[in-house]
Amino acid sequence: MFVNYIDWDLMQVAVLLFDDFETLDVFGPVEIFGRLKDIYSIGFYSLTGGSIGNGHGVSHHTLPLEELANGTDIFLIPGGYGTRKEVQNEELVQSIRNISGKCDFILSVCTGSALLARTGLLDNKAATSNKRAFEWVSTQGINVNWQRKARWTVDGKYYTSSGVSAGIDMTLGFLSDRHGYPFAKKVADELEYLWTEDKDQDPFYELYEN
Amino acid sequence: MFVNYIDWDLMQVAVLLFDDFETLDVFGPVEIFGRLKDIYSIGFYSLTGGSIGNGHGVSHHTLPLEELANGTDIFLIPGGYGTRKEVQNEELVQSIRNISGKCDFILSVCTGSALLARTGLLDNKAATSNKRAFEWVSTQGINVNWQRKARWTVDGKYYTSSGVSAGIDMTLGFLSDRHGYPFAKKVADELEYLWTEDKDQDPFYELYEN
Repeated sequence: MFVNYIDWDLMQVAVLLFDDFETLDVFGPVEIFGRLKDIYSIGFYSLTGGSIGNGHGVSHHTLPLEELANGTDIFLIPGGYGTRKEVQNEELVQSIRNISGKCDFILSVCTGSALLARTGLLDNKAATSNKRAFEWVSTQGINVNWQRKARWTVDGKYYTSSGVSAGIDMTLGFLSDRHGYPFAKKVADELEYLWTEDKDQDPFYELYEN
Repeated sequence: MFVNYIDWDLMQVAVLLFDDFETLDVFGPVEIFGRLKDIYSIGFYSLTGGSIGNGHGVSHHTLPLEELANGTDIFLIPGGYGTRKEVQNEELVQSIRNISGKCDFILSVCTGSALLARTGLLDNKAATSNKRAFEWVSTQGINVNWQRKARWTVDGKYYTSSGVSAGIDMTLGFLSDRHGYPFAKKVADELEYLWTEDKDQDPFYELYEN
């Protein structure tokens, strides 16, 4: 599926924030979508809106998720320590479920797939997560087809990545799927980023399996 | 030089922001220092303080640089389109010069080295920058020993990196220099990041030279 670059409407990327989100899970993909200003537009959201921070000293203003009641084009769900608490937040999980049902694409990074798994929307779908949190994440969706060896997974409209940096690789992979490989490779080169281009090539699988 | 992990005082990392900073130049290194909460503490600063944003839709609250009048431990200077304008901002350049003189380490990412070069502090020192902006950056400090082929450079207390993602490699290299290679490698692995460990190995040199 290729996007027409001269579409009048930018594709909206809604980034979910919650307390103790992982910095790079968010700002890796944001760097990529953000520099493609002619195609994508980014907004930050949280359950109640306002300023949301993490233990790295980073905070960002957000709009309330209810503003996404009609869905959006792309919904980005990061991971981080905060997911440990938020998987128990029924209101947030319900909100993610409702919004995801009305989005064209849902992308999770790292332990963000735990939050997404809690909605049930990943049941019988392929998904992955951070290597070091894999056991815990797996328990958040026992019917998910968890892929331990994957830089990222794609199943229908759901993209999920391995830990932290893998969100960058996945977002480049998303660009490749939508705009073609040369387009994505050009972005990777501009970022001087050593992109793991094959989603099934997982440089960290063996490290954490041994 | 190795840090004693049981030092009472955290090392302060002051991150410079200016309009149109590059997202990943900032939040790559911040992810790394931020997760080492027992050693480093992060603050964001700008010339006048307040909210500073960029074209990616990202903004962050900052304190005024005058609060760093007595220096800090580590001063991080990102790049981005904003540097094109800020190299002409005499007040900012003077402020960077004054603060840098009182810091233990100064780290620049991408075109951040253009700003740093304008202070004169890089004269006769090794430095590098974003490959695609190299010609322009070089003109900002004609007495700098510019290294076109380098993932990052170290010269005394000055660290400078190549484009965008290279800031992550440099920050890991900084950790390695201060805390030892195994410590830095562990952080890279936790981030599932394919670290270019050798600062002289530049995967993008040939791409942009041809």
